[in-house]
Amino acid sequence: MPSELLVKHNKPELFENDLPDERLAYYLTKSVVAIDTETRGLFIPRDRLCLVQICDDEGVVSFVRYKSREDLEKLKNGGSNVKKLCEAQEVTKLFHYARFDVAVLKYYLGIEVKPLFCTKIGSKLVRTYTERHGLKDLVRELLKIELDKTDQTSDWAQLDLTESQLEYAANDVRVLLPLHQKVKERLEREGRSELALKLYSALPAVCDADLLGYNNIFDH
Amino acid sequence: MPSELLVKHNKPELFENDLPDERLAYYLTKSVVAIDTETRGLFIPRDRLCLVQICDDEGVVSFVRYKSREDLEKLKNGGSNVKKLCEAQEVTKLFHYARFDVAVLKYYLGIEVKPLFCTKIGSKLVRTYTERHGLKDLVRELLKIELDKTDQTSDWAQLDLTESQLEYAANDVRVLLPLHQKVKERLEREGRSELALKLYSALPAVCDADLLGYNNIFDH
Amino acid sequence: MPSELLVKHNKPELFENDLPDERLAYYLTKSVVAIDTETRGLFIPRDRLCLVQICDDEGVVSFVRYKSREDLEKLKNGGSNVKKLCEAQEVTKLFHYARFDVAVLKYYLGIEVKPLFCTKIGSKLVRTYTERHGLKDLVRELLKIELDKTDQTSDWAQLDLTESQLEYAANDVRVLLPLHQKVKERLEREGRSELALKLYSALPAVCDADLLGYNNIFDH
Amino acid sequence: MPSELLVKHNKPELFENDLPDERLAYYLTKSVVAIDTETRGLFIPRDRLCLVQICDDEGVVSFVRYKSREDLEKLKNGGSNVKKLCEAQEVTKLFHYARFDVAVLKYYLGIEVKPLFCTKIGSKLVRTYTERHGLKDLVRELLKIELDKTDQTSDWAQLDLTESQLEYAANDVRVLLPLHQKVKERLEREGRSELALKLYSALPAVCDADLLGYNNIFDH
Amino acid sequence: MPSELLVKHNKPELFENDLPDERLAYYLTKSVVAIDTETRGLFIPRDRLCLVQICDDEGVVSFVRYKSREDLEKLKNGGSNVKKLCEAQEVTKLFHYARFDVAVLKYYLGIEVKPLFCTKIGSKLVRTYTERHGLKDLVRELLKIELDKTDQTSDWAQLDLTESQLEYAANDVRVLLPLHQKVKERLEREGRSELALKLYSALPAVCDADLLGYNNIFDH
Amino acid sequence: MPSELLVKHNKPELFENDLPDERLAYYLTKSVVAIDTETRGLFIPRDRLCLVQICDDEGVVSFVRYKSREDLEKLKNGGSNVKKLCEAQEVTKLFHYARFDVAVLKYYLGIEVKPLFCTKIGSKLVRTYTERHGLKDLVRELLKIELDKTDQTSDWAQLDLTESQLEYAANDVRVLLPLHQKVKERLEREGRSELALKLYSALPAVCDADLLGYNNIFDH
Amino acid sequence: MPSELLVKHNKPELFENDLPDERLAYYLTKSVVAIDTETRGLFIPRDRLCLVQICDDEGVVSFVRYKSREDLEKLKNGGSNVKKLCEAQEVTKLFHYARFDVAVLKYYLGIEVKPLFCTKIGSKLVRTYTERHGLKDLVRELLKIELDKTDQTSDWAQLDLTESQLEYAANDVRVLLPLHQKVKERLEREGRSELALKLYSALPAVCDADLLGYNNIFDH
Amino acid sequence: MPSELLVKHNKPELFENDLPDERLAYYLTKSVVAIDTETRGLFIPRDRLCLVQICDDEGVVSFVRYKSREDLEKLKNGGSNVKKLCEAQEVTKLFHYARFDVAVLKYYLGIEVKPLFCTKIGSKLVRTYTERHGLKDLVRELLKIELDKTDQTSDWAQLDLTESQLEYAANDVRVLLPLHQKVKERLEREGRSELALKLYSALPAVCDADLLGYNNIFDH
Repeated sequence: MPSELLVKHNKPELFENDLPDERLAYYLTKSVVAIDTETRGLFIPRDRLCLVQICDDEGVVSFVRYKSREDLEKLKNGGSNVKKLCEAQEVTKLFHYARFDVAVLKYYLGIEVKPLFCTKIGSKLVRTYTERHGLKDLVRELLKIELDKTDQTSDWAQLDLTESQLEYAANDVRVLLPLHQKVKERLEREGRSELALKLYSALPAVCDADLLGYNNIFDH
Repeated sequence: MPSELLVKHNKPELFENDLPDERLAYYLTKSVVAIDTETRGLFIPRDRLCLVQICDDEGVVSFVRYKSREDLEKLKNGGSNVKKLCEAQEVTKLFHYARFDVAVLKYYLGIEVKPLFCTKIGSKLVRTYTERHGLKDLVRELLKIELDKTDQTSDWAQLDLTESQLEYAANDVRVLLPLHQKVKERLEREGRSELALKLYSALPAVCDADLLGYNNIFDH
Repeated sequence: MPSELLVKHNKPELFENDLPDERLAYYLTKSVVAIDTETRGLFIPRDRLCLVQICDDEGVVSFVRYKSREDLEKLKNGGSNVKKLCEAQEVTKLFHYARFDVAVLKYYLGIEVKPLFCTKIGSKLVRTYTERHGLKDLVRELLKIELDKTDQTSDWAQLDLTESQLEYAANDVRVLLPLHQKVKERLEREGRSELALKLYSALPAVCDADLLGYNNIFDH
Repeated sequence: MPSELLVKHNKPELFENDLPDERLAYYLTKSVVAIDTETRGLFIPRDRLCLVQICDDEGVVSFVRYKSREDLEKLKNGGSNVKKLCEAQEVTKLFHYARFDVAVLKYYLGIEVKPLFCTKIGSKLVRTYTERHGLKDLVRELLKIELDKTDQTSDWAQLDLTESQLEYAANDVRVLLPLHQKVKERLEREGRSELALKLYSALPAVCDADLLGYNNIFDH
Repeated sequence: MPSELLVKHNKPELFENDLPDERLAYYLTKSVVAIDTETRGLFIPRDRLCLVQICDDEGVVSFVRYKSREDLEKLKNGGSNVKKLCEAQEVTKLFHYARFDVAVLKYYLGIEVKPLFCTKIGSKLVRTYTERHGLKDLVRELLKIELDKTDQTSDWAQLDLTESQLEYAANDVRVLLPLHQKVKERLEREGRSELALKLYSALPAVCDADLLGYNNIFDH
Repeated sequence: MPSELLVKHNKPELFENDLPDERLAYYLTKSVVAIDTETRGLFIPRDRLCLVQICDDEGVVSFVRYKSREDLEKLKNGGSNVKKLCEAQEVTKLFHYARFDVAVLKYYLGIEVKPLFCTKIGSKLVRTYTERHGLKDLVRELLKIELDKTDQTSDWAQLDLTESQLEYAANDVRVLLPLHQKVKERLEREGRSELALKLYSALPAVCDADLLGYNNIFDH
Repeated sequence: MPSELLVKHNKPELFENDLPDERLAYYLTKSVVAIDTETRGLFIPRDRLCLVQICDDEGVVSFVRYKSREDLEKLKNGGSNVKKLCEAQEVTKLFHYARFDVAVLKYYLGIEVKPLFCTKIGSKLVRTYTERHGLKDLVRELLKIELDKTDQTSDWAQLDLTESQLEYAANDVRVLLPLHQKVKERLEREGRSELALKLYSALPAVCDADLLGYNNIFDH
Repeated sequence: MPSELLVKHNKPELFENDLPDERLAYYLTKSVVAIDTETRGLFIPRDRLCLVQICDDEGVVSFVRYKSREDLEKLKNGGSNVKKLCEAQEVTKLFHYARFDVAVLKYYLGIEVKPLFCTKIGSKLVRTYTERHGLKDLVRELLKIELDKTDQTSDWAQLDLTESQLEYAANDVRVLLPLHQKVKERLEREGRSELALKLYSALPAVCDADLLGYNNIFDH
């Protein structure tokens, strides 16, 4: 990854099962943090959560890793720091395609994410000249960075995550901060900020329906 | 239509352009009113609103008819009684497939409907044993009435609406009240009331996106 | 066929190869005549023209029958009365789905139909509440007549046309006159008359492209 | 872009909201000018016009840029120089896939383009040996130039258009002039000139239908 | 089945494994016989031949029944009377959709059917005004008889064939004789007799390819 | 339902949560019992089990009804009589489309059904002449009974099951016994008994894969 | 094109409208010649024949060029040398996808090609391990040559055919001779020679049906 | 192929028609051997078996080659060493997509393979993060080797198999041993070992159904 944007950042830290309290306290001072998740696949009940990545505007990247389905079950009913961050009303959580991550966080950690900002929905609202709204596409056009997605489909449950996996996981959250700026500016220029907010508020209801197996609930 | 449920109701009244004030006052005393709209078709910018039908739990049916696109434009910026009713926080508005009606009412009359209840979404949540969620299907199963839909696709812009059209228009709102009861009970029995509420709150955001040409805005 | 509209009409007359001169003269006094064609099928180069049906507002129905491909070839280069009528600038020719008939008349009789009115295009412009624009659908809704289409796909090349075929052929043109009135009124009411005229003028270019094998010539 | 054809041309000039009078006067002396438009996307009511590009046989390229929806609304009812050029009966306007540009110019600037020549339709009529009728394909085969389409889907509403965007916008009209010559010659060789003219005259009716939401209006 | 055509015929006779010699001798005096087969289904290697039905112009119907796969294997290499009839050069064998029957007869009885006439191919050549070329459709249009196809999909391997099955099996060949006359006349009237003959000669090659698993062997 | 086969049977008995011990003891003396289940729909994790129906060759029908998800959870880990019957090695359990019922019984009651016989798979193996293998189709062809499926999609979670629902639920298991005889005979006649047994043994593995979200696990 | 196979051949000669007599006499001494055609596209009635290419086992390549539809019409009824060669019973004509070329030669030159050998059908019969039966695929696998197909879709009606077009046209026939050997050997090894011959004899009937608009004439 | 894994192995030996006795004895001392087959294509009855490849954990590769359909028929009824190995209860046979190989070995050599392990099914169970389960994909991800599949679709019936073909054939079995280790570990880590075993036991029933033409036998 050639871009200065990515290389200047601090080294990510890996925590098992939860964020340390001081890390939580640090992130709670921010108005915006980026969040991404890695799982064993796309079918949520079968493919468990493996990793939560968090990044802020200073490039402080934290990984929270879950080693087993049993660990997740224990955490689900308790009050984890990840949950506190995700539900903190003063911190907007940035995702790309929040529909998946928000559902995963609810299913495995009992989290009701709020408030949120989704760069995929934002991109659909302002980049009307294209049908390509993947993270890679946005990063290429808006940040002029070529993102390496090789590890997107890899085994996130293996104990020894590779250097390449960790790099990939970090970059996926690092880029969300500058992307958020660009998308937000365009939403304002095009008069779509209010619609975006309404859609972001509506999204958790869609995730809840998804988790219960109600697909296309709004369709005819 | 054989059912007592429909024949015992009062005769509908037809008003031009808006509800009279006393009619509005009457409906505002209710906690729930049913609303339906008839248009020239399904492509909202092209196919204008022709009729708004309103009914309450006592079977008082009102038709508000709009004779031209010009009349609608005049009403859009003013503060009509229909708008007051649709935006009254204390009165839940019942629709079947609210996604269409809410969008039409916003496009032609500048109305932000709230709060609302949609029997189609409700049916999807509780009648999981079928894929048939049309109004006719619900009315058959839950009310044991066979609804006549012949006039569903007819010319609602003609000046002299036929008896058959007016009967059809009235029945479409009349059935929504008892249907609402049935669907509500089942939502409670199945533990889906909270999800239903979240989805009803989310729906206007979907309608706004629809009106601006953003389809499937939540999809991958 | 129960309707008075159809039974009161005069008995159709069958002519071989062309209209008699007096019949042409009679039709030329009209502002509008309805025209339909019957062929051996829908693939024009293979399925030859068998019958042209003509009707006016007084219900005078003429059939022009062509017995063989050889007869048609002789007529193509000459100046038939059918051609004179179809190209008469003062007489609007009514069709339902003119795209087919206009192409057939050009291919087999060298006719450049003009001016024309197509009830199918007209119906699409004003009956926006339905996707059913077949002749049978229009006749049912606008004239309250149930048209018998049994003979639509029958052998129009057999020498002894059956009574049922002749009745079918006559009714297909008879209904076009009252249908034209209804569609025209609605085009005016909905402000679509000008667009309809532009589309009718554009249609022969589409037919020419069709005949040369250029399908969807305007598409991306 | 390696070709002499493109590099020898003069530097394009960018005008805000309209062509200057002298530029209009200059273009009106030509029998043919090429025109292209850039928008925020393909859904016309949502994705506004941003740029109109004009070029003549001497390579004089003009850009007319529209900075906002409000600016466009003001221009729509007035009599702009762009409109005068586009409606000038003596100047044939060249497009590639005119169906889109003609609709956009009508929707945002109230222009009834005439007369016109579309290289896409022309290509379909004479390049029957291929299904590839994109501008890039024509330019490659007929002009032996490899056109760079990278900026085709880019943000034409941003205030500071990039060098690359301006180069792309200029080249899209520059190539239309020599392309027009090539396509015209082939239309004559293949005896399709008359059909092409009929289709070009018919096209504005199709655009009008498109703008009103009537798709495939000629289809069965 | 109401039609005289069917009821006047003689009672069919059922033979096990082969035609008696005198029956063969009788059929060999005819220029045309109709043949149909019944199997356990449409996948020839799995679904064995159960019955061969034969009929001539005097309505003499014979059934040859095969009780097991083992019986068929014994017959395949010998020289049965059915094979002699099917390969007799002076007797044209009539089928409806010969492609299936000819393949079955080759696969299970080693028969190279020749010469043949297929009413399905014939119907496609002359009934260009329809896409319905099932036996039932032809019989309805050309013979004015409504054929009962209830037993088409039934268990032809059961030892006690029902009356209804035998009636169905007989009628399927009875109708082929008068159908052949009608189709032949139309092939002549439309100048398609020569093409039909070429296609009938070509058909066994298609069957051979089918049996070896080469589908659509002539396609691009 | 007109058939003697169905009306002669004893009245079904409804038990809550489990079979009584004596009823279990009775069924365990049988070599074959028929089993069917009713649920809230086809998406197993969302649509819970409501009813298990059991019938033997003497027409003794038992219903076991589950009133809530909580009741089911309690039963899942215990050792119910239904489980004992379903897992009894000496009693073959008959189903129609066992793939669904076996998965449901495992998911909600922790049952590993064995051994089993599925009339749908059996029908596919021997009724090769048709693609219709629904219970209604088999019953019509093999038992000459017209089964009423109106209540198939109804609300099996409502406390007061209707007479019509109970009749439907009973008949679905009653017909399986005679059907089993017919299908078994044909499997033997066609030499498919061994393949059927192998497929029935293989089926629970497919159900396990289904429950974990692995669809089409054997496919390429 | 790197292969010796192609470069060692003699220079092709271009003839207008027909083969010279001596060239015909020369080819008639051969048992096999390869033939290919170039047209304006794939829709035969619209896209005329432009070029016929002929090659023998010594690499003598002849081009016969047709400059206009009028030239072709004159030749159709006469007895050209191309026709004599194509209909010579002693010379097998090799094609790749003969279905197109045989139809074109019949439509534009009145030729009944016979006997023939098609490398595409042959490839389907013996290269059962692949679905790629394009000329390029065969040439790559069987001759180890990479064929350049760039000019396949080019303007064969232009008067000055390019060097590249002529090279392409020559190579398309040159490769057919060695390909024929390879395919023939494999047909023999796999026991498919007889089936191939039957299919080649059947092919002209398919072409005749194609030309009259009967597609998929053998299908159900 | 760069990997040490592949190059260190011994040279494969080619045997005609069967394994020598000592080779069989050697393989029978192993708990696991990898097996692959090469055929003339994917339609088993038409495309015969050409080669069986066997490899063990020490890289001892054997090829058994079948030169003709006749050779295979002789072997089918006898008791070949290949059959003894494939049916040896103590040796697990590894395949990739066993569904095809197991069916081929049964059809052509009368073998009932057992027990077995399929890396494709295993991959589907544990690599839930991807839809790519081809051998090439597994080998790339799990072994970091880029497998050359060029000869996958080649002519395995030719007498002189090329060096490239033999290398390809050997590598396809060589990689299965280390792949088996990796997949087995992941099945254990994810708790899917038991399900995998059930599916491997179920697979031969699916193959039997496939061979008799029953596709999707478990589907609705």
